[in-house]
Amino acid sequence: MVYSLDFVVRDYECDLQGIVNNANYQHYYEHTRHQFLLENNISFAKLHEENIDFVVARATMSFKRPLKSGDKFVSELSFVQEGIKYIFYQKIYSLPDRKLCNSAQFDCVCLCNGKLSTCDLLTDFVKKFSEK
Amino acid sequence: MVYSLDFVVRDYECDLQGIVNNANYQHYYEHTRHQFLLENNISFAKLHEENIDFVVARATMSFKRPLKSGDKFVSELSFVQEGIKYIFYQKIYSLPDRKLCNSAQFDCVCLCNGKLSTCDLLTDFVKKFSEK
Amino acid sequence: MVYSLDFVVRDYECDLQGIVNNANYQHYYEHTRHQFLLENNISFAKLHEENIDFVVARATMSFKRPLKSGDKFVSELSFVQEGIKYIFYQKIYSLPDRKLCNSAQFDCVCLCNGKLSTCDLLTDFVKKFSEK
Amino acid sequence: MVYSLDFVVRDYECDLQGIVNNANYQHYYEHTRHQFLLENNISFAKLHEENIDFVVARATMSFKRPLKSGDKFVSELSFVQEGIKYIFYQKIYSLPDRKLCNSAQFDCVCLCNGKLSTCDLLTDFVKKFSEK
Repeated sequence: MVYSLDFVVRDYECDLQGIVNNANYQHYYEHTRHQFLLENNISFAKLHEENIDFVVARATMSFKRPLKSGDKFVSELSFVQEGIKYIFYQKIYSLPDRKLCNSAQFDCVCLCNGKLSTCDLLTDFVKKFSEK
Repeated sequence: MVYSLDFVVRDYECDLQGIVNNANYQHYYEHTRHQFLLENNISFAKLHEENIDFVVARATMSFKRPLKSGDKFVSELSFVQEGIKYIFYQKIYSLPDRKLCNSAQFDCVCLCNGKLSTCDLLTDFVKKFSEK
Repeated sequence: MVYSLDFVVRDYECDLQGIVNNANYQHYYEHTRHQFLLENNISFAKLHEENIDFVVARATMSFKRPLKSGDKFVSELSFVQEGIKYIFYQKIYSLPDRKLCNSAQFDCVCLCNGKLSTCDLLTDFVKKFSEK
Repeated sequence: MVYSLDFVVRDYECDLQGIVNNANYQHYYEHTRHQFLLENNISFAKLHEENIDFVVARATMSFKRPLKSGDKFVSELSFVQEGIKYIFYQKIYSLPDRKLCNSAQFDCVCLCNGKLSTCDLLTDFVKKFSEK
């Protein structure tokens, strides 16, 4: 695990079942990835302005335990590079009991001027951080 | 009323109270304005690409009756121009009983290259449609 | 394919990259499943009131082509039951060109009074509809 | 001002104009109200389970300066009770420069078992906190 970010559930994220709506986990995971990059001086928004779009190619999520109104949780991340893919392994644990709520894998790729390619900025960054 | 658009409530728009979350009414109203413009050949996205940003300056919404899972409704719109402001009067009625669920006013303005100004495209359009 | 539902992209569903944000595909897919059930007299909201919660256990999505402002698309669905799992195969195609934009699998389960179990209502329904 | 809560903009909250979509301000304001109540032992979710629904009757928002990707901001709140209405005055300032981005008023009411009424729990609470 190379990065973690704390959250609290916001009531508007819960649906009529009284639990966090599934799509919001994708939001939590995206925000975690982007904050991780931002704290390492890589801005998703600035990349876009430079015609480098960092996009998700494939997502897998396992919903283990639902989060509810008032819950606190931590979102954890590790990642590796495999060719042109940047693979993020992400997990969400409730706090303070650290029970696994959700685990996910996001395969991301870079589009530079609309073309699939590696991105030096990200490759250098990944080299620094990847867990072997 | 110069435009109307039919909707059904989507379950993910409901919150833990089992009713449509307040913020989604802003989504419904925005989508209605944008579809109205689009059907008159004005694309919010294309305007943005031409550095013309059509933005809300002020919003007022009255929540009369909550919409729930499974509800159908119609979103209606009329508007006038007052100087640099484009004022949209919008209402949402449940279907088929046409009970008033929400009424709203959105004061919009144009930013051309970041500067507040009238926009010929919109002014011509408003002239054509405004209800006196 | 046993069910399809037409959509238009709503501008608020697009993010700063100018394309539909990933999490919204989960919304599209959920709305498609729920409308499909609703048109067969199974209400996700009513199930919840009867303490039957139909939840996603696992989701896999492949992002092939991004949807953009103004795009129309169709969301298609088929499904099978495997033990206690209800597996939905879902695809999104842009319209009118029917290019594949997203394909997904959602493994759903039923919680009756909080306990994992099959649900007669759904099992009967699946029997009727499943594609062999 | 009786309560304040710090936020960072999440990229998925920005729309194709590259700024926070209007509806998300309602989310920020709602989360601020609910966290304020929660830190004073009033849970929006628990109120709902006891058939007390705290709802917005009217909302007014002025959009002064847009928030963007990477921005930090503080959401501030004060409130008064007027008869059956609980009126929240809320403001959002960018950080660290404290420029006013959005100001709003939310008139809330209580539905006890579906009937409009004052709620002892909230009235006692308001008495303690209201700014004169």
